[in-house]
Amino acid sequence: MATRQDIDIEISEVGPRDGLQSISPIMSTEDKKRWISALAAAGLPEIEVGSFVPAKVLPQLADTAEIVAHARTIPGLQVAVLVPNLRGAQAAVAAGAHKITIPLSVSETHSLKNVRRTHAQMLDEVRAIAELIADQPADQRPVFEGGLSTAFGCTLEGKVPASKVIEMAEALIKAGCSEVGLSDTTGFGTPTQVKQLTQGIWDAVGREALNGVHLHNTRGQGLANVMAALEMGLTTIDASMAGIGGCPFAPGASGNIITEDLVFLLEGMGLKTGVNFESLLAARQILRESLPESVELYGFTPDAGLPKGFEMATSQS
Amino acid sequence: MATRQDIDIEISEVGPRDGLQSISPIMSTEDKKRWISALAAAGLPEIEVGSFVPAKVLPQLADTAEIVAHARTIPGLQVAVLVPNLRGAQAAVAAGAHKITIPLSVSETHSLKNVRRTHAQMLDEVRAIAELIADQPADQRPVFEGGLSTAFGCTLEGKVPASKVIEMAEALIKAGCSEVGLSDTTGFGTPTQVKQLTQGIWDAVGREALNGVHLHNTRGQGLANVMAALEMGLTTIDASMAGIGGCPFAPGASGNIITEDLVFLLEGMGLKTGVNFESLLAARQILRESLPESVELYGFTPDAGLPKGFEMATSQS
Repeated sequence: MATRQDIDIEISEVGPRDGLQSISPIMSTEDKKRWISALAAAGLPEIEVGSFVPAKVLPQLADTAEIVAHARTIPGLQVAVLVPNLRGAQAAVAAGAHKITIPLSVSETHSLKNVRRTHAQMLDEVRAIAELIADQPADQRPVFEGGLSTAFGCTLEGKVPASKVIEMAEALIKAGCSEVGLSDTTGFGTPTQVKQLTQGIWDAVGREALNGVHLHNTRGQGLANVMAALEMGLTTIDASMAGIGGCPFAPGASGNIITEDLVFLLEGMGLKTGVNFESLLAARQILRESLPESVELYGFTPDAGLPKGFEMATSQS
Repeated sequence: MATRQDIDIEISEVGPRDGLQSISPIMSTEDKKRWISALAAAGLPEIEVGSFVPAKVLPQLADTAEIVAHARTIPGLQVAVLVPNLRGAQAAVAAGAHKITIPLSVSETHSLKNVRRTHAQMLDEVRAIAELIADQPADQRPVFEGGLSTAFGCTLEGKVPASKVIEMAEALIKAGCSEVGLSDTTGFGTPTQVKQLTQGIWDAVGREALNGVHLHNTRGQGLANVMAALEMGLTTIDASMAGIGGCPFAPGASGNIITEDLVFLLEGMGLKTGVNFESLLAARQILRESLPESVELYGFTPDAGLPKGFEMATSQS
């Protein structure tokens, strides 16, 4: 496995969380472990392995504590989880997650509808989680990210002003997040927005507080938006194996950026991802075997194969 | 309809040629005319309406002369066609096409396999066509483009050296083409290649001799490669309504860049395409009605719709 210093762009694989929560079949705990191990073995440096939400809300992710425990045994892997509130963060800290993300909808209408909370209430949760983390021994404190959901627009409110996104980024950092992430929850995002929001947040809270984007492919713009992120100098890109999850709108449309196609894009630009492509396809095979055939897997590069004569930037030995 | 000076990026719609030649059902001449009129009415400034090849090779395009005659009646539309040789060019000139493209495979192996001609033989054709065009009255001479096929790699040869692409660009201009086009026939292309080949050709034959790219989405990289083309300053992008044609590799995979998604990308970046989105969807509806249901139409934005509150750069009135 590549060490992290050999990696130019970190792909954060969100399939086990964002993907599995979006489909109704429940993957068995053993299959999840096998899949996550295969993803890590392919060289992916960070995996969002689950979400600490009540099992009655997302039964697909009810085994997140056990999955985190397994993932922590994989050397070098950054184990990330999502939490909706303090209670989830307590479970995440107890399980030993390396990174905890709490999503906050920049559109307050969306926040109220989705988690029945105002921005003020969400920021109270963030402060409580920050205190919880500060109480941990210094060498065991997870990274604490505030995810700026609906940052590119909202299906309810429509346009979300950049000034509001920047304001919430500042509020999250002030409330105790160590970093923020830009999230195109609705697939509204354009390359121009990626650039403007990144610059705006950097200007407000500092460059080190925003490294990554979570982009959707709802309108086919996923990799074009990645190009804008790369041009800015962002270094972490979320993606999902086979494009599962995210916000698919129609049959045939992947919601998330497809990990396999993103790897080809980055490696084709000479940017090391640390990924071994053959091992990535082996992980895809495990995913295929672990889900019913009715769950569609996306991805152009797996079907077409890498171009004849193509050389990865990451050493494939 | 927008005048061409109101357009920042010209989308050259290749569906009626590249799309229809790639599917087995034959669209009726009347439906083609209706579709092309609708595409032009949506504001697309250039349409590749057919190919002058023997009817026994491509029965789908046997009515190209009649289609060119119809397209020429549409005010302001640049009517483009493909020709494989002098005989095709004679027919194109007789029909009154505004732009004639002859594809030349930079991979000679591919050229021999595809059209049974060496580079030297192809360049002889180019010279003969250039003479034919020079013999026309000055105000009736079509633009004569040499299309650099397999410029990004070849399924037979694998890597195609950039030096070979540049050499063939020079040869095409020297043989009498007024411009060249970069074509990712095999869907091997990366953003790095788009930039390097564009710069290399500009350095060799001058910036005005290369304006456009024909990119495929075989490995999902279409719009990412468009981003590289835009960054360089290329101003014409080929695309196909509903992504039909091109080099699709698998079910669910569009071959060509999807016009509808490209329009959203460009307009979202504030670049005027001249396109009215509602009229574009009306043209898509005509395409749907004109083909059997078994022919799959692609495109994320038509299914998801433009984002709530989205404003096009092109005036939609």
